[in-house]
Amino acid sequence: MSSLSVPPPQCLRKPLVVPDRRMFGPGPSNVPPRIIEAGANPVIGHMHPEIFEIMSNIKSGIQYMFQTQNKMTLAVSGTGHTAMECALFNAVEPGESVLMAVNGIWGERAADMAERIGARVNTMVAPPGGFFTTAEIEQALLKHKPVLLFVAHGESSTGVLHPLDGIGQLCHKYDCLFLVDSVASVGGAPLCMDQQGSIDILYTGSQKVLNAPPGTAPISFSERACQKIFNRKTKPVSFFLDLSWLANYWGCDDKPFRVYHHTGPVSAFYSLREGLAVLAEEGLENSWERHKTVAEYFHAGLESMGLKLFVKEKKARLPTVTTIVAPHGYDWKEITTYIMKTHNLEISGGLGPSVGLVLRVGLMGCNSTKANVDMVLAALKDALKHCHKSKV
Amino acid sequence: MSSLSVPPPQCLRKPLVVPDRRMFGPGPSNVPPRIIEAGANPVIGHMHPEIFEIMSNIKSGIQYMFQTQNKMTLAVSGTGHTAMECALFNAVEPGESVLMAVNGIWGERAADMAERIGARVNTMVAPPGGFFTTAEIEQALLKHKPVLLFVAHGESSTGVLHPLDGIGQLCHKYDCLFLVDSVASVGGAPLCMDQQGSIDILYTGSQKVLNAPPGTAPISFSERACQKIFNRKTKPVSFFLDLSWLANYWGCDDKPFRVYHHTGPVSAFYSLREGLAVLAEEGLENSWERHKTVAEYFHAGLESMGLKLFVKEKKARLPTVTTIVAPHGYDWKEITTYIMKTHNLEISGGLGPSVGLVLRVGLMGCNSTKANVDMVLAALKDALKHCHKSKV
Repeated sequence: MSSLSVPPPQCLRKPLVVPDRRMFGPGPSNVPPRIIEAGANPVIGHMHPEIFEIMSNIKSGIQYMFQTQNKMTLAVSGTGHTAMECALFNAVEPGESVLMAVNGIWGERAADMAERIGARVNTMVAPPGGFFTTAEIEQALLKHKPVLLFVAHGESSTGVLHPLDGIGQLCHKYDCLFLVDSVASVGGAPLCMDQQGSIDILYTGSQKVLNAPPGTAPISFSERACQKIFNRKTKPVSFFLDLSWLANYWGCDDKPFRVYHHTGPVSAFYSLREGLAVLAEEGLENSWERHKTVAEYFHAGLESMGLKLFVKEKKARLPTVTTIVAPHGYDWKEITTYIMKTHNLEISGGLGPSVGLVLRVGLMGCNSTKANVDMVLAALKDALKHCHKSKV
Repeated sequence: MSSLSVPPPQCLRKPLVVPDRRMFGPGPSNVPPRIIEAGANPVIGHMHPEIFEIMSNIKSGIQYMFQTQNKMTLAVSGTGHTAMECALFNAVEPGESVLMAVNGIWGERAADMAERIGARVNTMVAPPGGFFTTAEIEQALLKHKPVLLFVAHGESSTGVLHPLDGIGQLCHKYDCLFLVDSVASVGGAPLCMDQQGSIDILYTGSQKVLNAPPGTAPISFSERACQKIFNRKTKPVSFFLDLSWLANYWGCDDKPFRVYHHTGPVSAFYSLREGLAVLAEEGLENSWERHKTVAEYFHAGLESMGLKLFVKEKKARLPTVTTIVAPHGYDWKEITTYIMKTHNLEISGGLGPSVGLVLRVGLMGCNSTKANVDMVLAALKDALKHCHKSKV
């Protein structure tokens, strides 16, 4: 007889059952068999030579995806939020002024994070669907004199692709680091870290265009960013995200050997490596072009159904995540629920400032095909036919 | 012709190759096919009802493994270090006094983390292989008046299983939270969160006794811990690890619905769930007993070879990770390298304060069998025969 006070839970006696569905929300996206299989390789040690080789491959793959020569390029053991904290925890010291461009949820979250570590947080706010001109940004840089500017390249809550040209140069003129969130955009929209706007810190997640499971987050730091980070007066609040430790674990520093930092999620590294390999095989420009073509095909299809795109300016539409104005007279939640139930297909409502305003459809990485567009359009048509329309 | 400045890396054109080896170091341990297969299920959304159901199963499994009724029980999206930061970030405010029992690397790291968030860090230090009596702990509690005491139950760097009886009661007498690291011990050594010492915060990792890939970290908070945490004057430094957000994501609060916090690593949740299911099937007490029997068998075998156990007191020997006094006259690194090359089997050297002093062998979860002990003993015999012995 057991003397334990908590018995084994009955629910764990049932086999694990996971449905297979079309993941056409803003992420995670579907993971193709090749990447699933990579992740199912045997677990080896987080300090074995073979994992260092795989991490080195990942580093090269990220440098390619980001179009950067930065030595300080690695993957954080976490999701996009972890990468966001990694950037802010390392680049910002208490009392320093930062500027967050808020045109959706990501700017809000960056502001929340920076406040927690004692930064003086300034925000510039645009309505959902909007973005900022370089003139507006220059004005704010002059006013707040921040050490860091945050911009979300792909604002997946509103479907905006933020123009980046010229912002990096402005930042450098005012001695400010340029931090860019590309979780929803990189690989699916043109982005060259070293050229386009000279980005100082860029990060993304594994579960969007890369089609790997969530759990790793590529990040890269420019020489300028490293200069500031490695001359801090205070230690970053997190040991786990301290760049000097991460740099050593990822072989990005000049130390002769690596010291145990944390146990890297090796299985997630395998699948991230494979996602990067798939992107390298297709070629970044081909992937950009494919996402653009498919998005335009999708947008035309939506408009021909009488639906409206939430982002007015064509050039500011994110090719990976499309926001559709929530159809008038319908309950958006009924539409997404109907489509999930009837078509086994995820599309989603708004997030943060866009809740209630939009439907969101993500077609990222291998999901970005015209056949999938046709499937989504058919599901939407069916939903609009069967869901309740108010008599207004 | 591509106009990109960084070409696709050649290294990603080679197929991913991962060796299969016996993982008998201090972790990660081998992941059996059933758990690998669970992790290879399709990726679904981090907010889908099916993942909430899986998270609920995980919660029940952790409550069983920890032997706790705590409602505030969940898995952090990260490794043991993330859980350690989650505990400290939430339970400690700047300026508060904490006490770290340091008898190996984990106490050192907890001290490092607490310093970073502005706590007044006090340490009590025992030499590698040692631990603390309740009298010593009471003295230190009286002296430093900490809000939190950290103890590593399984100090995997030195092979010590720290006795916990009575410490929780002492902590409560002096109005202090009792934080216990059980990354290397839980599931393999008796531990009952709610009884034995009344632990306030307990965490572990997925990659040890649970035999899941690294990347998730079970954690549980007592009502007392929650009382302190939810009455903080300042916000925790990390949004990602803020317990009020995590509690909502894991359905541990009383809110009617869940708000998007971060994208949980769903594949890692599948394998964690399966690791917990395997433990529940065997039964916690059976698992404790098996680890004890196998460890004693191993220790006897080592002593009959003339090797010495690093931890003198039998009752303080960790049944999951055994530390062997580094054989006199040998280079420990040559031994571990020889065994890896010749036997495809990982054992490791020391870590932190135990570097150069010990060899470490981990037999955790499914790896804890007499057949594996025989394999390790044979490999050690072979290594001592073939590695260089100095003429001293």
